[in-house]
Amino acid sequence: MPEVKEAALANSQQLVARNPVRVGIVGYGTVGKATAEILTANAQEIARRIGVSVLVTRTCRRSPRPLEMGINGLPVTRNWQDVVFADDVDIVVEAVGGTDVALQVLRAALENGKAVVTANKALLAQHGEELFCLAKQNNLPIGIEASVAGGVPVIRAISEALAADRIQAVYGIVNGTSNYILTQMEQHGIEFAEALEQAQKAGYAEADPSLDIDGLDARDKIAILARIAFGLAVNIAEIPVTGIRQVTATDFHYAHRLNSTIRLVASAERTGDGVHLAVQPWLEPRDSMLAKVDGANNAIFIAGERVGTQMLYGRGAGGSATGTAVLSDVLQIAQQIARGGASASGLAGFHNGKRTPLLPRPHAVSWFLRLTVQDRPGILARTAEAIAHCGINIDSVIQEPHMPKDNLSFVITLEPICEKTAREAVQAINQFEFMKSPVLLLPMISSAEEHV
Amino acid sequence: MPEVKEAALANSQQLVARNPVRVGIVGYGTVGKATAEILTANAQEIARRIGVSVLVTRTCRRSPRPLEMGINGLPVTRNWQDVVFADDVDIVVEAVGGTDVALQVLRAALENGKAVVTANKALLAQHGEELFCLAKQNNLPIGIEASVAGGVPVIRAISEALAADRIQAVYGIVNGTSNYILTQMEQHGIEFAEALEQAQKAGYAEADPSLDIDGLDARDKIAILARIAFGLAVNIAEIPVTGIRQVTATDFHYAHRLNSTIRLVASAERTGDGVHLAVQPWLEPRDSMLAKVDGANNAIFIAGERVGTQMLYGRGAGGSATGTAVLSDVLQIAQQIARGGASASGLAGFHNGKRTPLLPRPHAVSWFLRLTVQDRPGILARTAEAIAHCGINIDSVIQEPHMPKDNLSFVITLEPICEKTAREAVQAINQFEFMKSPVLLLPMISSAEEHV
Repeated sequence: MPEVKEAALANSQQLVARNPVRVGIVGYGTVGKATAEILTANAQEIARRIGVSVLVTRTCRRSPRPLEMGINGLPVTRNWQDVVFADDVDIVVEAVGGTDVALQVLRAALENGKAVVTANKALLAQHGEELFCLAKQNNLPIGIEASVAGGVPVIRAISEALAADRIQAVYGIVNGTSNYILTQMEQHGIEFAEALEQAQKAGYAEADPSLDIDGLDARDKIAILARIAFGLAVNIAEIPVTGIRQVTATDFHYAHRLNSTIRLVASAERTGDGVHLAVQPWLEPRDSMLAKVDGANNAIFIAGERVGTQMLYGRGAGGSATGTAVLSDVLQIAQQIARGGASASGLAGFHNGKRTPLLPRPHAVSWFLRLTVQDRPGILARTAEAIAHCGINIDSVIQEPHMPKDNLSFVITLEPICEKTAREAVQAINQFEFMKSPVLLLPMISSAEEHV
Repeated sequence: MPEVKEAALANSQQLVARNPVRVGIVGYGTVGKATAEILTANAQEIARRIGVSVLVTRTCRRSPRPLEMGINGLPVTRNWQDVVFADDVDIVVEAVGGTDVALQVLRAALENGKAVVTANKALLAQHGEELFCLAKQNNLPIGIEASVAGGVPVIRAISEALAADRIQAVYGIVNGTSNYILTQMEQHGIEFAEALEQAQKAGYAEADPSLDIDGLDARDKIAILARIAFGLAVNIAEIPVTGIRQVTATDFHYAHRLNSTIRLVASAERTGDGVHLAVQPWLEPRDSMLAKVDGANNAIFIAGERVGTQMLYGRGAGGSATGTAVLSDVLQIAQQIARGGASASGLAGFHNGKRTPLLPRPHAVSWFLRLTVQDRPGILARTAEAIAHCGINIDSVIQEPHMPKDNLSFVITLEPICEKTAREAVQAINQFEFMKSPVLLLPMISSAEEHV
């Protein structure tokens, strides 16, 4: 890569060695404010630990409240340009959110010789390659630890701790909102709508919750993790995504009958010559570690060829946790700046322009099918025949007594079969005139499989 | 710290920027061999990921087998000096073990301008300050990720990911051997001696297992974690340590009656003006995450003021996992060398010469007391009186029927009380002539406490 080296040399004066290192924060909401606040409150301990002083010199809130002051009595500016083009800023923290202004901020910062740190998973999932390319041209670091799983250091674990290993799979719970909703449904036997309302009241879900509950936030995050773990770029539009709107209190009831619970899982697996990515609810054994992850927590499993399976668990969201993650990058970059060695990050997956086509789930698993029907004679016979016609063995049929006849839910579990065949059977069943709603199809993960 | 800066400048030419970066491995047993093997097998993927080529140029085994060859057909030398003083070595990996030759190797390497990486927890617990001081004088990095919890990146999580947070507590399962033994006892209802024998047969315990089962290995590891988390040095001889030799099959039986299990836990807590460190078996609720950690796995909880409680879980030992952790440091240092920015590590706790005195456990907990007695009338009355005399409330008494009269085990659980008072009661009970062995005293951790 001779052209990259030249670019690096040409720009190597942009971030000169200095101590203290100065931080500008664009976007002064929950995350931006927490970042400034933690950095200021723990300034002494941070300086002692890393040997570098780091201070906030500029903050920007696009719609500041009247006379609002930032940290250390600094005025809060309205214009992000006042931060990004300032001489007294070495690192720009982008905490704007969205993919519009945030992209402008990061582009301008990198073009103007600033290191950048962002928690913006949607932006990274959509424009990651462009930003990392720009960073490489200008030999500047980009920190993205906070973009996945809040304060849980999963980016660092994959990119640094497991740099020597060949990672086979990354999967887990990466959306705290939907996990909070599923946990509420599990613990209180309530329906989805009520749990969503509770999550909104508790501040875990937004007024428009679709990014979280439809799995799109989890999709963006697993796309980022796949890039880092496998060094492969993927087109997020190709990732099959199923959210949790379809999950009912009855599903949890049947899940319990199977000694299981339901969790929204994002997964990325490396197979022979490609990768499989998906976001969908899974049926998880209740005694598994994944099932123990409750509330707004996150947990990510990383399966490496040499290191075995690791799990990282903690708070996936919230200003303090996300601010701590933002600062982990800020401080790492500050140390590099202090010793004159700040340079482009080595997150190879974002430098790979070619997007890898996604493959179907590579191995057979068991399946949980929940059918909701208008009861009449012959339903089980016809359903069983449709399943047999696809060459699938039924493992069990579970139907509670005293269900309402006009809205009867029952469950069929299938022996391990590939996803394509399971979906063929579901498609056939969905055609039946007695079906009140489409089949809910969940992969069933055994404890043994969990620890690959 | 002007004197440090000068030293750094004086020595800053020792590690010049270069690519490829060259690694010498001293000690060619399980870990050393795995390190060389993984680095060589994954050389291409590593170079792609981190943008730096890293290769093994020298290996040393003090007692090589006849005609043994190292990686890439390189001869294995007998003398560690051939590695440490070689011109074609930038990073020395110390995989010798023990605290004698290993210390000589690391001293010589640092004095000769080599970066070093070690997995040697005993050495770090005893001589960490000296080594980090030497590294600082010579402005050289020391990598110690592999010294605690094998492949689980706990050092990195504390020192990098949570650099901005104030850590309140670090605790968990850090010794795979004793966890394997306890898991075997739990799952198969066998006694300690039988489980130890199985662990030895399975290669999880050494012929002399005392470092593991007496908690000394866990003590060294928690001392390292406390240094990094709190920036405080401690005298390991002051840490109260109880191993697992005293734990019986009957204890597991009673633990199950209390919906709990037994795990050997190392813990470090920051209190008002000091720290509390301990290694001892805990009674853990069976549905807690810690109780789910089985076999030779490790799990470390990190409680930060801002980030909340995180947990990292994975294989704590074995050549591949430890080798991967060694390489995570090697590759990070290699990246620094490649861009000319390798310098002393920022692990502040090892630069603090003053050892902090340890405080007693700062808060009251419930306690599990198992008594083994020669049965006769009046035992419960006298025991209860001894407990009452210390002002402690009894929470429950559990005694299985049909126990042998001459070796009868029963359990008393105490309401929350400070450790000092609980131990006073135990001391009084141990004086009774009917006691067949000293009381087994375990703190009981509730699920609520686990997630601080």
